[in-house]
Amino acid sequence: MKLLKTFAPVALMMAAPTLGFAQEAAEAAEAAAAPDINPYIFTTLLFLIGGFLVFWMAAGFAMLEAGLVRSKNVTMQLTKNIALFSIAAIMYWLIGFGIMYPGEWLIEGWLGPFFAVTSLEPVGLAAEDAALDYASAGSDFFFQLMFCATTASIVSGTLAERIKLWPFLIFVVILTGLIYPIEASWQWGGGWLSEAGFSDFAGSTLVHAAGGFAALAGALILGPRIGKYTKDSKTVPMPGSNLALATLGTFILWLGWFGFNGGSQLAMGTVGDVTDVSRIFANTNMAAASGAVAALLLTQIMYKKPDLTMTLNGALAGLVSITAGPLDPTLFGALWIGAIGGVIVVFSVPMLDKMKIDDVVGAIPVHLLAGIWGTLAVPFYTEGTSFVTQIIGIAAIGAFVFVTSGIVWLILKATMGIRVGEEEEINGLDMAELGMEAYPEFSKG
Amino acid sequence: MKLLKTFAPVALMMAAPTLGFAQEAAEAAEAAAAPDINPYIFTTLLFLIGGFLVFWMAAGFAMLEAGLVRSKNVTMQLTKNIALFSIAAIMYWLIGFGIMYPGEWLIEGWLGPFFAVTSLEPVGLAAEDAALDYASAGSDFFFQLMFCATTASIVSGTLAERIKLWPFLIFVVILTGLIYPIEASWQWGGGWLSEAGFSDFAGSTLVHAAGGFAALAGALILGPRIGKYTKDSKTVPMPGSNLALATLGTFILWLGWFGFNGGSQLAMGTVGDVTDVSRIFANTNMAAASGAVAALLLTQIMYKKPDLTMTLNGALAGLVSITAGPLDPTLFGALWIGAIGGVIVVFSVPMLDKMKIDDVVGAIPVHLLAGIWGTLAVPFYTEGTSFVTQIIGIAAIGAFVFVTSGIVWLILKATMGIRVGEEEEINGLDMAELGMEAYPEFSKG
Amino acid sequence: MKLLKTFAPVALMMAAPTLGFAQEAAEAAEAAAAPDINPYIFTTLLFLIGGFLVFWMAAGFAMLEAGLVRSKNVTMQLTKNIALFSIAAIMYWLIGFGIMYPGEWLIEGWLGPFFAVTSLEPVGLAAEDAALDYASAGSDFFFQLMFCATTASIVSGTLAERIKLWPFLIFVVILTGLIYPIEASWQWGGGWLSEAGFSDFAGSTLVHAAGGFAALAGALILGPRIGKYTKDSKTVPMPGSNLALATLGTFILWLGWFGFNGGSQLAMGTVGDVTDVSRIFANTNMAAASGAVAALLLTQIMYKKPDLTMTLNGALAGLVSITAGPLDPTLFGALWIGAIGGVIVVFSVPMLDKMKIDDVVGAIPVHLLAGIWGTLAVPFYTEGTSFVTQIIGIAAIGAFVFVTSGIVWLILKATMGIRVGEEEEINGLDMAELGMEAYPEFSKG
Repeated sequence: MKLLKTFAPVALMMAAPTLGFAQEAAEAAEAAAAPDINPYIFTTLLFLIGGFLVFWMAAGFAMLEAGLVRSKNVTMQLTKNIALFSIAAIMYWLIGFGIMYPGEWLIEGWLGPFFAVTSLEPVGLAAEDAALDYASAGSDFFFQLMFCATTASIVSGTLAERIKLWPFLIFVVILTGLIYPIEASWQWGGGWLSEAGFSDFAGSTLVHAAGGFAALAGALILGPRIGKYTKDSKTVPMPGSNLALATLGTFILWLGWFGFNGGSQLAMGTVGDVTDVSRIFANTNMAAASGAVAALLLTQIMYKKPDLTMTLNGALAGLVSITAGPLDPTLFGALWIGAIGGVIVVFSVPMLDKMKIDDVVGAIPVHLLAGIWGTLAVPFYTEGTSFVTQIIGIAAIGAFVFVTSGIVWLILKATMGIRVGEEEEINGLDMAELGMEAYPEFSKG
Repeated sequence: MKLLKTFAPVALMMAAPTLGFAQEAAEAAEAAAAPDINPYIFTTLLFLIGGFLVFWMAAGFAMLEAGLVRSKNVTMQLTKNIALFSIAAIMYWLIGFGIMYPGEWLIEGWLGPFFAVTSLEPVGLAAEDAALDYASAGSDFFFQLMFCATTASIVSGTLAERIKLWPFLIFVVILTGLIYPIEASWQWGGGWLSEAGFSDFAGSTLVHAAGGFAALAGALILGPRIGKYTKDSKTVPMPGSNLALATLGTFILWLGWFGFNGGSQLAMGTVGDVTDVSRIFANTNMAAASGAVAALLLTQIMYKKPDLTMTLNGALAGLVSITAGPLDPTLFGALWIGAIGGVIVVFSVPMLDKMKIDDVVGAIPVHLLAGIWGTLAVPFYTEGTSFVTQIIGIAAIGAFVFVTSGIVWLILKATMGIRVGEEEEINGLDMAELGMEAYPEFSKG
Repeated sequence: MKLLKTFAPVALMMAAPTLGFAQEAAEAAEAAAAPDINPYIFTTLLFLIGGFLVFWMAAGFAMLEAGLVRSKNVTMQLTKNIALFSIAAIMYWLIGFGIMYPGEWLIEGWLGPFFAVTSLEPVGLAAEDAALDYASAGSDFFFQLMFCATTASIVSGTLAERIKLWPFLIFVVILTGLIYPIEASWQWGGGWLSEAGFSDFAGSTLVHAAGGFAALAGALILGPRIGKYTKDSKTVPMPGSNLALATLGTFILWLGWFGFNGGSQLAMGTVGDVTDVSRIFANTNMAAASGAVAALLLTQIMYKKPDLTMTLNGALAGLVSITAGPLDPTLFGALWIGAIGGVIVVFSVPMLDKMKIDDVVGAIPVHLLAGIWGTLAVPFYTEGTSFVTQIIGIAAIGAFVFVTSGIVWLILKATMGIRVGEEEEINGLDMAELGMEAYPEFSKG
């Protein structure tokens, strides 16, 4: 009805006087002139729903990681997860959002343009002051913030069971305040990567591979857990303490991913947009399912026994794989893209172990490797994208995140140290660093 | 505003020239002719929200079952739950949806009309190509898929602690690809049951009793767990290993059920529809609450001690009971329908044990018996329904699912075997079949 | 488009005959006369989404409390949580809603106006019968019910590990049927407090402090757990049995709080309203994050070790603090209001112990003290409010809830007794009262 606003009021006002009710005509004209606010409401609602679903992923990471570490390190893993989310929420507001979207309507300077502070729209915003072709700034900020926090969540699992709490949290401050916003700005802030034609719909590279690169840099500098690899290079299994929690975490992440990918459509006020969001939901679900089935079948074939943790990670790898392009593939496309994600996990987990890179929860296979795969798969279905550009984007973001993260880790290592002492590690971080066990009453076998 | 599209443009165009702005009149006419897309967006959104809530029920079943089996079988139960959902997602796409809704706009043939493959709408669908009086096909597919998966989830709990993984998953392939789509097609695909006047709003029979019948056939063919019933026909309690998880699973299912029943309104774009969805939410909550309270009070009266697992199952039975008719009853109606569901559970759990039907989590009382009860209760509040037709529907679906499931179970038993060896069962399926414990560090009492 | 309804039809009908198509004119007039139903649908949807999110908080309380009690009392805590929610759902329908909103359109008398029964709108409500400037009564009832249940959830944690089941549930009957509806009516039912200018947006005082006052009265009358305080007034730590569950519960509550505060906007159909909801989401998240970080830092400073349970309670205290005024503060305002909430928790937990008030999960610091703080903080950002009026409101509600709760607790104590026997308490309530352990297989250390 938008076009009516130029015409109808005039027509009605000209007709009205002859009918004798000028005032009502004026009122009607004003009403007819009102723009259609429904798309704004729908898209804002998409961000709010998408945002709370992605928030829920923070709980998913917490449960997944708490389930996959040994019980002596569970309290630490829980502490890290609630702390990193909270820090991300503050840092992304304090400087992250301003760096990622420079010059945006949402920013007001505090200490100059670089160190900006995000503010929200005034209470009771009038329709004429709103970005009616988009959504409320508050909902957008809320949604974007969750992506920043997700990037940090990815790091905590890899480095579990040996890293000190505070150096890790300082790294999170820098990751969520600077590293993520800078690289994400290159694409989603309208920077050079988006101009170069790079395509990463919801962040296979910008979020997941980026988190994976930060984790990889940390894992290399931190080194493996004591006893993980024997002198003759064998890998010692260190099974997770609570697979029910790990499974719960996976289901939570799966659920949250509908918001992660669906919300990234960034619009829900037209037939095309809401239909696209539906397409994304269906594709996202399919990729997770095929990732899980692929890992289940492959572990049965390779090891004669299906592996639950591989299956869980297979589902997650399927989700990461479809994240770069959840809209354009057919359901069959989502199936094979996700399945390859699951296959990647099964092969790369032992490969990392051979390289003595100790990734406690498998975050590097799931988020880094499947993230790269998903980004590379975009040109199969999305017109106007090219493998070369996708590789450039992955390489640029990978190099930037890996190098800057590595520098931060090295500085932290040189100054305050990033690893607990040998005795603390063997006894568990919970008692050593926190003085609090997660399951104090259950005897350990 | 729909009626304006036939008239207003003409009127405005005819009036406009005399006022001297022909072009604006044409634009205004076009705008006035635009159909109202908001109902399409609202209903699509209902399916997306409803769909992710029902997805979440898969996590609920996983937690409920993981909590109610003994710790030596938890990994297996978790594996089955994530695998069955993933298989359902693939099978329902591959053939299930095509069977359930034959000749629908959503289908494109791959290997002929029977073995069809579901496809989604094109990206960026134009309003004129959309089913504006309904919702996006993608959202509908996403929502319907979750019901298919739920049917399979119901089966896994009953057969826990003794069934082999792969035969179970093969059964899931057939259940989600063929058995469920065929029987659901009789009603929701516009088949003979819907023509006969059968009424099952959200699937007390089509989903819950159907899952229960498939489980019952399996339980009879599989037999009870070793040691569950003594030679003198006494029942040996085998308490669940983690009631916190079981309670969490119940809350998850309760939450997901708002999507299950509310989404089944299949429309949210009018005052009547969204008000009906509200009514369904309130009734669904009431039935769950009254089912829980009924079971709590009854176990106190009967056993002098309230029973948590009965109370949890009472809430679930209340939910199943209201599912066949969550719209028409008053809140008081929802209360007594749900309460009877809770009563059914308390009486039928020991009854099944007397019949030596070993249902590990109580899925037969909750889903089959309360499902039948809920379907029978529809005529109390829904005009145009009759007890006779309801009984015909239950009997037809029951017979079909029970017989076809029984045949599949028997074939699986004859070919690959469906039950683990005695030693494996006693030692637990986790180590025997998967080589992985759910709680490896906690000493078993 | 609302104003058109008085004018446009007439204009069109008068113009139409001269153009020769009277019937179409009449149709168009009718269409143009149709009011805009979208705000009604949006606000109803807000209540449905908000309602299921707040429902989810019931699971959050259950997990938080199950994680913070010792394993011998977990089944009891789970039973109380599912029972109290169910009872609240029934009592609020039976009398609570009628007391809270006297004379509302939602009520039909059963046994006179006082003992009223809530009923819903008829199925398929016509637009002309709907409260188009608000939302469906069913969705409103569903949403309001969840707040009543939340109030009861708060009480159960404080009194854990020593209270009998049935007296507790009888207290819940009175709290949810009478005490909460009466005090909430003073403000949200348009009573004297709202007329006095008291401001409590989503219930820092009406829900959280009220629940806290009821819990405090109970804790004083019930007394501390055996062995909690030594003769020389030292506090004996009784660590929670499962911090993973406690963390999960906190994340669940955090998620649900978006519905709690966001839904309390009570409207989503205009640009201003949906933008305000966004603002509330962002502020709510910020307050939780800053509450967590404040508690984390403070426990590190005070005890040299960060404390996970304090951090979890810090996040919750941040949420409670912002609940009285989640809309008006800036993000920076939400940050410092929430942070003070976290600080309050860290200082008041040991303070309560010094006063020998045994609050098992810290609900009094989190809900009562941070609730008072949040209510007092409103005038910093909300025009037209005053500290004096805020104090009057807190005092009135506090006195009413504390006194009435105390009377109920004393009557229960005098009649049926509220505390389990010494032996039962030492052995755990699960075996003594319920005969069912939550983790029967795990050896206790």
